[in-house]
Amino acid sequence: MKNIKLVIEYDGTNYSGWQRQYNAITIQQRLEEAIEKATGEFSPVIGSSRTDAGVHARGFVCNFFTASKIPISNIKMVLNTLLPEDIAVLDSKEVDSSFHSRYFTTGKEYSYTIVTGDRPPVIGRQYVYYFRRKLDIEKIKNSCEYFIGTHDFSAFKKKGSSARSSVRTIKKLTVLKEKNLIKFNIVGDGFLYNMVRIIVGTLLEVGLGRFSVEYVEEILESKDRSKAGKPVPARGLCLEKVFY
Amino acid sequence: MKNIKLVIEYDGTNYSGWQRQYNAITIQQRLEEAIEKATGEFSPVIGSSRTDAGVHARGFVCNFFTASKIPISNIKMVLNTLLPEDIAVLDSKEVDSSFHSRYFTTGKEYSYTIVTGDRPPVIGRQYVYYFRRKLDIEKIKNSCEYFIGTHDFSAFKKKGSSARSSVRTIKKLTVLKEKNLIKFNIVGDGFLYNMVRIIVGTLLEVGLGRFSVEYVEEILESKDRSKAGKPVPARGLCLEKVFY
Repeated sequence: MKNIKLVIEYDGTNYSGWQRQYNAITIQQRLEEAIEKATGEFSPVIGSSRTDAGVHARGFVCNFFTASKIPISNIKMVLNTLLPEDIAVLDSKEVDSSFHSRYFTTGKEYSYTIVTGDRPPVIGRQYVYYFRRKLDIEKIKNSCEYFIGTHDFSAFKKKGSSARSSVRTIKKLTVLKEKNLIKFNIVGDGFLYNMVRIIVGTLLEVGLGRFSVEYVEEILESKDRSKAGKPVPARGLCLEKVFY
Repeated sequence: MKNIKLVIEYDGTNYSGWQRQYNAITIQQRLEEAIEKATGEFSPVIGSSRTDAGVHARGFVCNFFTASKIPISNIKMVLNTLLPEDIAVLDSKEVDSSFHSRYFTTGKEYSYTIVTGDRPPVIGRQYVYYFRRKLDIEKIKNSCEYFIGTHDFSAFKKKGSSARSSVRTIKKLTVLKEKNLIKFNIVGDGFLYNMVRIIVGTLLEVGLGRFSVEYVEEILESKDRSKAGKPVPARGLCLEKVFY
C-alpha cells in the first residue's frame, strides 16, 4: 500500500464542508469518488482539518492509502480530470506509511477577507464577508498583538468543541487594508473549532469601538466564550496552508 | 409614467444571459420579477446590451417605465432586497421619458480577464478564462493598435449578427499583465455580436505566434470572419461601463 499525500484547492461555496455526511455533498466525498474512479478501489481520505460549509482552501492537505498501480506522477492529472471544477489537486506525492495529514500538522495558516463599502459585492461575493460599518483598523492592529503567543483559547472556541486542550500558540496575526478590502492572516500551531472566525468577529467589535483594544486581553484571560465576539461567516475564511 | 434608469452589477455565472427566454433563467427576468414585486405592476426592462450566458457586468444600464408611487430614492434599496445576491442595483434615477438605454448609448467598456499558469484556477474561476500556453504580451500589445479607430469589423462578428452596419470605432484597447493575470480593456462606440470575444481570441493567436502582429490588419481589411481567431469563453468577459 502506498500512502499518498495531496495538496488541494477548493471553492467551498457549494459544499457542506470537508467531512463526509450522510445527506449532504462534501469535499471529502467528491475526492473519494474521484479516487475510486481513478484506482478502482475505495480509499477513505484523511483530511488535515474539518473545514465548515462555505469555507475555502488554497492549500488543504489530505492523504489516502492505495494499492493502485497508477504511477504517482499521474495521480494529480488523473484526479483533476475526474474532480469537479471547484476542487483541484495542486500536488501529489508518496509519503512514509506513518504520515497522517491531521496528526502530523505543526501549524496552519488561514486568511479571512472582508469587503467594506456602501453595498455588498456581487462579483466574488462567495469569497468575502461584507461589512458595512466603519472600522478603526489601527485599533484592530493593536488588539491583534494580544493573540500572539501561547494562550488558553477557551473564550474563542465554539461550545461543544471536542479538543482535549484549549491551549494554542498563535505565531502571526496581521490585518491589511487595501481600498475596500480588509484581509486578516493568522498562523498558529492549531485552531479550535470556529476559533479563527471568533477571533475575527472579536476584532471587528474592537474596530467598531464596542470593545476596547485592551479588552481582548481580558477576554482571553477570562476563558469565557460569552465575552468574545460572534463568529464571522464562513465564506470569508480560507485555509491557506498546512505545515508539517 | 416615470422612466427609471438603473445601473446594475451582476454575476452572470448562473444565468442564460441578459435577455428573457422562454426556457431559461435570465437577468432581465429576475429584474422584471423584482420590479413587479416592488411596484405591483409588470414593467418590461430595456437593456443596454444583450450579454451572453456567463458574461458578467459591473456597470450594466437598463431602464423601465412605471406608474408606481415608490419614491425614486427608495427604488435601489427596495430592488436590492428583492433581487438574488448575484444581481445588485448600484444606482437608480428618474430620466427623461425619451431616454432609451440601448438606443442612447454612445459607448461601452468591456474587460476580459485571462489566468495563465500550470493549472486552472479554482477560487474565482467563474470570472476568468484559463489559458495554459505561454503568450508574448509585447506582440499582443503591438497588435492592439490595429484595432484602434474606425473599421469595418465584419471579420470580428459572429455570423448571423443582425446589426445593419459592421463599422465601429474602438477608442481604447489595452492589455495589462500582472503576475499570472492578463487583463484586456476595450472601449468603443459599440460592439457587434461576439466582437470583444473574437478580438481577444485573435490577439491570443498573436500571443502564441500563430498570427503575426501585422496579420491583424490583414484580417480587418479582409472582412472575412474565417480569418480571425475563435471567440474566447464568456466567463472572462465583463461589461464594465455604458456611456451616454
